[in-house]
Amino acid sequence: MLEQTIKNERTLKSYRAWLQYDKIEDIDRKLYLKWFTAIGVATDTKITKSAVNEIIWAAESMLEKTPDINEETLDRTSIILGTYRHIHLEEYGLSSDLLEDVNEEGYVIKTVNNNEKQQILLIGKTDKGILYATYHLLRLIQTKASLEDLHIKDAPKNQFRMINQWDNIDGSIERGYAGNSIFYVNDNITDNLERVKDYARLLSSIGMNAISINNVNVWDEETNIITEKYLPKVKNIAEVFRAYGITIYLSINYASPIVLGSLETADPLDENVQNWWKQKVAEIYKYIPDFGGFVVKADSENRPGPFSYGRNHADGANVLAEALKPFNGIVIWRCFVYNNLQDWRDKETDRARAAYDHFTPIDGEFLDNVILQIKNGPMDFQVREGISPLLGALEKTNQFIELQVTQEYTGQQKDVCYLVPQWKEILEFDTYAKGQGTKIKDIVNGSVFKNNYSGIAAVSNIGNDINWTGHTLAQANLYGYGRLTWNPDLTTEEITKEWIYLTFGQNDQVVENITYILLNSWKTYENYTAPLGVGWMVNPGHHYGPNVDGYEYSKWGTYHFADCHGIGVDRTVETGTGYTSQYFPQNAETFNSLETCPDELLLFFHHVPYTYVLHSGETVIQHIYNTHFEGVEELKEFIQKWNDLDGLIDKVIFENVKERFHMQLENAKEWRDQINTYFYRKSGISDDKNRKIY
Amino acid sequence: MLEQTIKNERTLKSYRAWLQYDKIEDIDRKLYLKWFTAIGVATDTKITKSAVNEIIWAAESMLEKTPDINEETLDRTSIILGTYRHIHLEEYGLSSDLLEDVNEEGYVIKTVNNNEKQQILLIGKTDKGILYATYHLLRLIQTKASLEDLHIKDAPKNQFRMINQWDNIDGSIERGYAGNSIFYVNDNITDNLERVKDYARLLSSIGMNAISINNVNVWDEETNIITEKYLPKVKNIAEVFRAYGITIYLSINYASPIVLGSLETADPLDENVQNWWKQKVAEIYKYIPDFGGFVVKADSENRPGPFSYGRNHADGANVLAEALKPFNGIVIWRCFVYNNLQDWRDKETDRARAAYDHFTPIDGEFLDNVILQIKNGPMDFQVREGISPLLGALEKTNQFIELQVTQEYTGQQKDVCYLVPQWKEILEFDTYAKGQGTKIKDIVNGSVFKNNYSGIAAVSNIGNDINWTGHTLAQANLYGYGRLTWNPDLTTEEITKEWIYLTFGQNDQVVENITYILLNSWKTYENYTAPLGVGWMVNPGHHYGPNVDGYEYSKWGTYHFADCHGIGVDRTVETGTGYTSQYFPQNAETFNSLETCPDELLLFFHHVPYTYVLHSGETVIQHIYNTHFEGVEELKEFIQKWNDLDGLIDKVIFENVKERFHMQLENAKEWRDQINTYFYRKSGISDDKNRKIY
Repeated sequence: MLEQTIKNERTLKSYRAWLQYDKIEDIDRKLYLKWFTAIGVATDTKITKSAVNEIIWAAESMLEKTPDINEETLDRTSIILGTYRHIHLEEYGLSSDLLEDVNEEGYVIKTVNNNEKQQILLIGKTDKGILYATYHLLRLIQTKASLEDLHIKDAPKNQFRMINQWDNIDGSIERGYAGNSIFYVNDNITDNLERVKDYARLLSSIGMNAISINNVNVWDEETNIITEKYLPKVKNIAEVFRAYGITIYLSINYASPIVLGSLETADPLDENVQNWWKQKVAEIYKYIPDFGGFVVKADSENRPGPFSYGRNHADGANVLAEALKPFNGIVIWRCFVYNNLQDWRDKETDRARAAYDHFTPIDGEFLDNVILQIKNGPMDFQVREGISPLLGALEKTNQFIELQVTQEYTGQQKDVCYLVPQWKEILEFDTYAKGQGTKIKDIVNGSVFKNNYSGIAAVSNIGNDINWTGHTLAQANLYGYGRLTWNPDLTTEEITKEWIYLTFGQNDQVVENITYILLNSWKTYENYTAPLGVGWMVNPGHHYGPNVDGYEYSKWGTYHFADCHGIGVDRTVETGTGYTSQYFPQNAETFNSLETCPDELLLFFHHVPYTYVLHSGETVIQHIYNTHFEGVEELKEFIQKWNDLDGLIDKVIFENVKERFHMQLENAKEWRDQINTYFYRKSGISDDKNRKIY
Repeated sequence: MLEQTIKNERTLKSYRAWLQYDKIEDIDRKLYLKWFTAIGVATDTKITKSAVNEIIWAAESMLEKTPDINEETLDRTSIILGTYRHIHLEEYGLSSDLLEDVNEEGYVIKTVNNNEKQQILLIGKTDKGILYATYHLLRLIQTKASLEDLHIKDAPKNQFRMINQWDNIDGSIERGYAGNSIFYVNDNITDNLERVKDYARLLSSIGMNAISINNVNVWDEETNIITEKYLPKVKNIAEVFRAYGITIYLSINYASPIVLGSLETADPLDENVQNWWKQKVAEIYKYIPDFGGFVVKADSENRPGPFSYGRNHADGANVLAEALKPFNGIVIWRCFVYNNLQDWRDKETDRARAAYDHFTPIDGEFLDNVILQIKNGPMDFQVREGISPLLGALEKTNQFIELQVTQEYTGQQKDVCYLVPQWKEILEFDTYAKGQGTKIKDIVNGSVFKNNYSGIAAVSNIGNDINWTGHTLAQANLYGYGRLTWNPDLTTEEITKEWIYLTFGQNDQVVENITYILLNSWKTYENYTAPLGVGWMVNPGHHYGPNVDGYEYSKWGTYHFADCHGIGVDRTVETGTGYTSQYFPQNAETFNSLETCPDELLLFFHHVPYTYVLHSGETVIQHIYNTHFEGVEELKEFIQKWNDLDGLIDKVIFENVKERFHMQLENAKEWRDQINTYFYRKSGISDDKNRKIY
């Protein structure tokens, strides 16, 4: 069943990622083999077929056994797949309201004994539930769990679980660090649907149900993706994802009515424009009947939008929403809107304020199939920044949070930086929007404001590198993103252990060392890069490597204001930009006050002298020196721990990560020395440990 | 006689540059018209034909008169052209040894009265002299000089007067700021030889006699320029230039024997390599019998060279020289060799030392048809830097000085920066190589060390913009470069006035205002950019606009070492890199001592506190503030003076320069504010005039 074209890749562990299906040996084999004698299929859909195929593939790979495929039958030990409507639940002594309390994508996994024959039932609320149950079962086997007495009920906690590809038709990927696009080759949409299918399998196995397949920056050629030039091939891509329960979305150019429709305007209140979008949407649905809708970056970083016509973002989004409504399509409208032609001399304007200032005044004006997509922080995916105050501020508008799996500002998959701890911290953040305990995770899952639509989106980190993510350990970020989005209540430790088990097996040292590396990597990356939440200090444009003043005199609104006395951005109400007032009072007070502002965000909210003493007891300048020297030492420890795994893990993966660690060490030293030198030269204050500063 | 293709361009004043041939009116017309009744041609060569054609064109344009063309004759008032061998000098009462004391490119211009008929004799030592005499005569007419009693004898003071095009075959120009290449179009050498011919006219009119037509960085495709793929078209280009007395050269890839010859090495001591170059050179000369030779950038900024094989630069150059020798070809070997992978932490290595350290130990080892091409400064064409100590240090090696007409670090032809004053200062610099008075100009003209070959080369500033140079005032740099190279004893004022007369005519206000702008522009540019000779502080890569730390933590060896106490590069013997010791003692002492080092080079040679008091009486920090505020005010004065010329000069040129001034003002303000802010933030010292710093 493997296509010859990528058969070789599929034998590589680095390609298989967390769907290894390693061969199971000895005693374990006997425990699992019996279940794979036969598969009973009670529900006949394409998605169920994907589930069955996955079981067959896994069985052949793990157990060298090809199961028989039957309809549902009680007289053999087997795995039974079906929705609760198709499986004869009462014959297993189960109630038909077993799935009443789970949502449409939920499932039950149940081991039943039946006349000395056993069955494992994979019961979906719908066929998507069957598929998720299947991956769950295979995960259990790969992590060597017992199947003898399973009673599992699960369902995703977020309605939308989305991946955004920032892929361009020329095959490049904006902020991609793992080769070129798997979707576009030779300036067209790929015909290599097998690789796309494997991506669909990976995404589906971690519960993703939505994907946008082109860059939110929609350039000239990409504008045509909603025309007959590309739609026939978009349809092919949609079919692949549909079989894995994933709906596809397209990013659009807001100026399409002009560029494609030869209209004189793209004004959303113009009737011709409205009609043009209606016809365009109808055309798309002819190709893709379950098309998800549009992702839109408008009036942002030089992309066109409704501001050109004196309209606001609600006007802008609603014209698209009207067109999509009859087809149950949605508009995902990004809130990454700010003045990117700022004058660095202007200390009044604060980019951090922009999204809140733009969108809170129009809360309630969006149609109910519009979703605002809000970045986790008010700046741009820094290693550390405040939480966006817009999250929680919109009571009458659907919203997604947007995370970034691709490591734009966090090491670009040359440096290991496991982001699950960061996302966990974000999702657990208490906004106080409806009093204490109004966490981000409950806002974005729609429960706080009872939204029609809600969920989490994130920028993908994959490309056509054999190992998908460039740095093999970066696979953990995609995995973790999926698992956390499915269930934000999972702990970082649970997710991490699960990924290591699935990818590397359960050797104690392997698990211990990789766990150590992953769980400490974000903090270490933070240690050797921009300090105390101040952000930026990266090379402009590509964003890799240190450049303290790289954005200091730029138009991007990204400043640190370091002088010979101190550093930081004063965002307080009294003397600064007033950004802190965008939070609900409890947080506003915490951040606004030097006494209560957490150390790690000090310079994000305050401008302080280098001699200011942190809660930790260190001065700011000594903290900078300490963390930067420590960061490099911690990294050396990672490298030692990795090198200790030589021979214990796949050689290709070992060497890939070893090589990346070499690059990371160079990067970390460069950060350490540039940051320390910069601040030593600027402050004139020596390191109290007399370490080497240049 | 105009080709239709560029007939329109040739009517534009901005295209005609300093060969305007403006219509002469009224009384003046009568004074000049008589001479153009007839032209007597005593010498019949292609170059003489170019001279005759230029006279015809000029006469038609200035006087609406087409002269008769005859052989030499005494019975008409006419202009007679010929070499001293062909013109019957004795018939005019002239001695045949009239040109004995001028070199091969010299000439005499002489007005003679003969039976009430007058002749102007343009007598060349060779036909090149005729051409130069012709342009001289036309210059006299355009500047309204009397022709009644001319007694002029002139000859170039430099043997080689060369232009280097940094043009690539894809049409791009490295460090080009005036459009694309006029030599390359559609990934091939152009067939538009008319534009090339006009460039040859411009160059010849200012005495240029050599041109290299491709970038010294020879990339993959450009490596093929010495193959049959391009040589037939190179030959066409050579023919155009030959008719104007200009020899062509090609830049080569040192790895050509490998890339083109499929040899396993390019080792200059390898016999196969030596033979390969001999055959290659023979092949080139079949196409171009008077081919000049090669320009070589080797072992520099990642270009291949002899170092790869453990050979030195003499070995490297000599293999080429051996091959070129039989054809009288030469090798022009660039000395821009330094470690471009330096660690910014390493304060011992000094890029400024590199050329001297590389080349002085092998003085005398080069064959006599090798010429070392030495940049004027030891760094890279900064607005202000020291003079290269290599100039004067090579007693047994031919050398060119290399200047940069294209304004890479001096405003990129958006900012006006007239470089003749800088070049003049360089050429007049006393090296003390042979005692007091050993000026650079006398070293590079070959007289100090009695070189076989000597001269001046410079990087061109032209492209396919209609006005050749982007900024029309930048034409003055090309003009001035040519005139100064012909005769370094000309004053800046003479050259400037001449260019203004030729380009704009003699309106008093036009002459006064443009003179003011040009003569002050270098100082103004210096004022608002990097201070006191420290250099750099530009945006990396493209080199336009301020970025104080842009090169501070880079691999390029270009640092300012600013901290909260002071700034500058310590190049002294006692505490610094010892670079000052590369100069002859008098200069070494001057630069090495804080007491005698000129203010404008202080930070190039010394690291000093911001509170250090300059000879001017200002502190360093106050100097920085003052010059940066003043620079912008001076620029506003230029703009006012330019705007006052509205209606007095060609509208196209007026608007072009006006628009550029607008860009320059934005640039200057950005420099002012970034530099002042950077140093204010770093030093904590306020401006004593309390002007606005951010």
